[in-house]
Amino acid sequence: MKSPRYIRIKENDNVAVIATDNGLSAGTQLECGLTLLEDIPQGHKVALTDIKQDENVVRYGVVIGIAVKDVPRGSWVREDLLRVPPAPVLDSLLPAKFKKMPQPEPLTGYTFEGYKNHDGTVGTRNVLAITTTVNCVAGVVDIALKRIKDELLPRYPHVDDVVALQHIYGCGQAPNSADAAIPNRAIRNIALNPNFGGVPLLVSLGCEKLLPDLLLPKGTLPLQAAGPYTVVLQEEGGFEKMVDAIVKLAATQLERLDQRKRETCPASELVVGMQCGGSDAFSGMTANPVLGHAADLLVRAGGTAIFSELTEVRDRVDLLVERAFDQETAEALVGEMRWYDNYLKRANLDRSTNTSPGNKKGGIANIAEKSMGNVIKSGTSPLMGVLGAGEKLPPHYRHGLWFCSTPGNDFFCGSLQLAAGMNMHVFSTGRGTPYGLAEVPVVKVSTRSELARRWPDLIDVNAGQVLTGEKTIDDMGMELFLLLLDIASGRKQSCAEKLGIHNGIALFNPGVVV
Amino acid sequence: MKSPRYIRIKENDNVAVIATDNGLSAGTQLECGLTLLEDIPQGHKVALTDIKQDENVVRYGVVIGIAVKDVPRGSWVREDLLRVPPAPVLDSLLPAKFKKMPQPEPLTGYTFEGYKNHDGTVGTRNVLAITTTVNCVAGVVDIALKRIKDELLPRYPHVDDVVALQHIYGCGQAPNSADAAIPNRAIRNIALNPNFGGVPLLVSLGCEKLLPDLLLPKGTLPLQAAGPYTVVLQEEGGFEKMVDAIVKLAATQLERLDQRKRETCPASELVVGMQCGGSDAFSGMTANPVLGHAADLLVRAGGTAIFSELTEVRDRVDLLVERAFDQETAEALVGEMRWYDNYLKRANLDRSTNTSPGNKKGGIANIAEKSMGNVIKSGTSPLMGVLGAGEKLPPHYRHGLWFCSTPGNDFFCGSLQLAAGMNMHVFSTGRGTPYGLAEVPVVKVSTRSELARRWPDLIDVNAGQVLTGEKTIDDMGMELFLLLLDIASGRKQSCAEKLGIHNGIALFNPGVVV
Repeated sequence: MKSPRYIRIKENDNVAVIATDNGLSAGTQLECGLTLLEDIPQGHKVALTDIKQDENVVRYGVVIGIAVKDVPRGSWVREDLLRVPPAPVLDSLLPAKFKKMPQPEPLTGYTFEGYKNHDGTVGTRNVLAITTTVNCVAGVVDIALKRIKDELLPRYPHVDDVVALQHIYGCGQAPNSADAAIPNRAIRNIALNPNFGGVPLLVSLGCEKLLPDLLLPKGTLPLQAAGPYTVVLQEEGGFEKMVDAIVKLAATQLERLDQRKRETCPASELVVGMQCGGSDAFSGMTANPVLGHAADLLVRAGGTAIFSELTEVRDRVDLLVERAFDQETAEALVGEMRWYDNYLKRANLDRSTNTSPGNKKGGIANIAEKSMGNVIKSGTSPLMGVLGAGEKLPPHYRHGLWFCSTPGNDFFCGSLQLAAGMNMHVFSTGRGTPYGLAEVPVVKVSTRSELARRWPDLIDVNAGQVLTGEKTIDDMGMELFLLLLDIASGRKQSCAEKLGIHNGIALFNPGVVV
Repeated sequence: MKSPRYIRIKENDNVAVIATDNGLSAGTQLECGLTLLEDIPQGHKVALTDIKQDENVVRYGVVIGIAVKDVPRGSWVREDLLRVPPAPVLDSLLPAKFKKMPQPEPLTGYTFEGYKNHDGTVGTRNVLAITTTVNCVAGVVDIALKRIKDELLPRYPHVDDVVALQHIYGCGQAPNSADAAIPNRAIRNIALNPNFGGVPLLVSLGCEKLLPDLLLPKGTLPLQAAGPYTVVLQEEGGFEKMVDAIVKLAATQLERLDQRKRETCPASELVVGMQCGGSDAFSGMTANPVLGHAADLLVRAGGTAIFSELTEVRDRVDLLVERAFDQETAEALVGEMRWYDNYLKRANLDRSTNTSPGNKKGGIANIAEKSMGNVIKSGTSPLMGVLGAGEKLPPHYRHGLWFCSTPGNDFFCGSLQLAAGMNMHVFSTGRGTPYGLAEVPVVKVSTRSELARRWPDLIDVNAGQVLTGEKTIDDMGMELFLLLLDIASGRKQSCAEKLGIHNGIALFNPGVVV
């Protein structure tokens, strides 16, 4: 029988996480001499010392909760034994006191084969995107999309796919409200994603609030080719003519996209969006540290890594403020947190509503613990910039690590990272989710070997190997970095891509619906 | 040349609407002797008298605006010449003073061929619905859906269609917030729509907030047949097994649905959801009065008509309160208006943000004018009950006219009317929209003949014939009522149904996303 495994992360932690696949039974003796007082499932915490009522519970070297009653050594430190510690007070974080940051060696010589765009961005896939101004056109666009995929796409061998960017907004919002700007600019910036090559196809109804000129004001489009790119359904004489008009315009745009050719690009042109979903207690020990190390390698190679998830960063924003590039960046980060605190306050809520039943089942007691697991994927690089929800990386931005403001929910986060301009997406998961996007390749990293074994066709990288000692975090970080270059180049496909699994656009609309 | 046409609705109106197809030019003399001072487009208003600054502008016999400056007789009464009048003060409406209501003859002998369900509801189509607890499963469900449609559906000749109820929630919401109850109960009640025959197929991820037992608590399902109806993806061993599990369960449920047979049902079992979208100035003169008359006929036949669209009812809620069945109903209606006022106030907005560019182009100056056009489709029957957003008609409810609380936006409204339990849908449009639903047949009624001519394959009923005098509102109301019975029976299909046009579910989530 293998010896019972458990993981204490920092010296001063007074809890450890049970790592053995099916958990451990009461009476089991750990290597340190501790005897379990009760059965503890995998991913859940055991008290390493007697913890008195109102004393701090410490994991990752930080306070993840306050004991609501005495917790004897060897007990299962369940969610209900912990009070959530307060989040850092935002005002106290500014002006930022910067930490001395490591100056790692630049990584040179890493490249991928990408599609260079006129606006300086680089695509990893060659996709025709049909952008819709409003949900009213969705039914017609779905039918046109099917025709385009069946009849046209096979004729353009250099185009990978056609995707309709369907969403539930574009009308029914208050156009004058500041909040409406978020979904509106998200649709615009998703349409400008590097994988679409600056060759848009816009379908409008004709009477919506988000009319084409408002969605894509003249001058915002880095057009690779001149010519019309909009179909307005109300200007067409019935259904057949609507579909024909879209299909005809698609043929023109496919022709243009078909001219795109892959060229060797430095790794510095990769923009990798990172997020986690269905997290468990291992997210912060295996998958997310691997993502963090890959992000560090990417940054050393001159590339850009984006992380997000407001509710899951809020509790550890102090660790990010001290890594900010300058005061302006620190202030922008704190500003996003303040905006989100106020947004949640409207509903008399705070970030503690984030944790899901699956998180809890997976051993994450609360948002304080989840946050530590989340921010680890930002690695150790300086924070070079901050994007508001729906904003995209500006021209000539400082490459490196960026924070993009999004809810924690996978689909809102993924859509906003598409808007930010990612050309690759990495998704870590503990409980397991068959996540995918049609717009950019999604690489899925599991926190546990059990999940990777059970879902061999869905998990690209098994970070559970870190837990079993088969591989180190550094090895797996490099492996992930190299895999990203391969997939970006089209030499390999991710699991979700092979299977054609994709989730649609989910627009974050903090505003009202009228 | 035909004489210039214009429409004054009530004796005391001081504006009339230009009805001639391309509008009228300055200098044109109307039959009443009035000469136009400027060009006025179709659907827009002409001042019939000199209107002084701060005087009321009256259409439909009610104040639709207050003149911001002197408007000479013969002028175009443009949007910017009007101040929006205040909405009725809600507190002043209670206790309700009831209007003496007409007691029309019951209509007997009208029937349709429907699918009777165990819970007493009646379906008009026989559809397998795949309900998803959470967006995480969407990609896998899409692939399974394609297999079910291609491989299974042709084997079950009595089943009309298979539809996946995809949405962007189920996680990422605050489970304890009152607001989250709205999207959650909407998903539940859509799954219980009469057209799905009480034979559910639920796909869950396994770690989401809206777990199957929370979405469909035991006892809420009027199961036609016992047996499992849930697939949990995290319990399956990879992608292929997930898809196989969904397809296998679909075969069982299709087998059950295939046993359903149409039976003759009284028209009283029809539940017709009504809404308008892309409205213009004719909505309140042609299409919506036709809908109102059809609703009156339906109510006289013992059936149920549902109308909605909070922002478009708010300004004329006084006319509905006095038609309420009892004080409780009046209070419920006012309660919904109060809730919505507060909802909009969160964003420092009010109902006046509703009108779209298309509405304005079509001659609707503001929400006060739009509301009059909207509430006309409620006909003249007493208001028998009120549903909150996402609620469904209770067992043994009072048949007749109901208000179902929804935003004005077409897709949020349609989805919530599906949740309410409609088995037929009527949609009136002025500007034109190719709206459709996969769950119930949608009958589209145009306000103008020009639209019906231009979109012959999309418009089912041309209420523009009222404007040209070819038909009366009463004739067309009866025509629509009979068409609804035909389509409900499956003897005819609506345009959207024939073409397979459908919009997806849009969940109204007044709460926050985390």
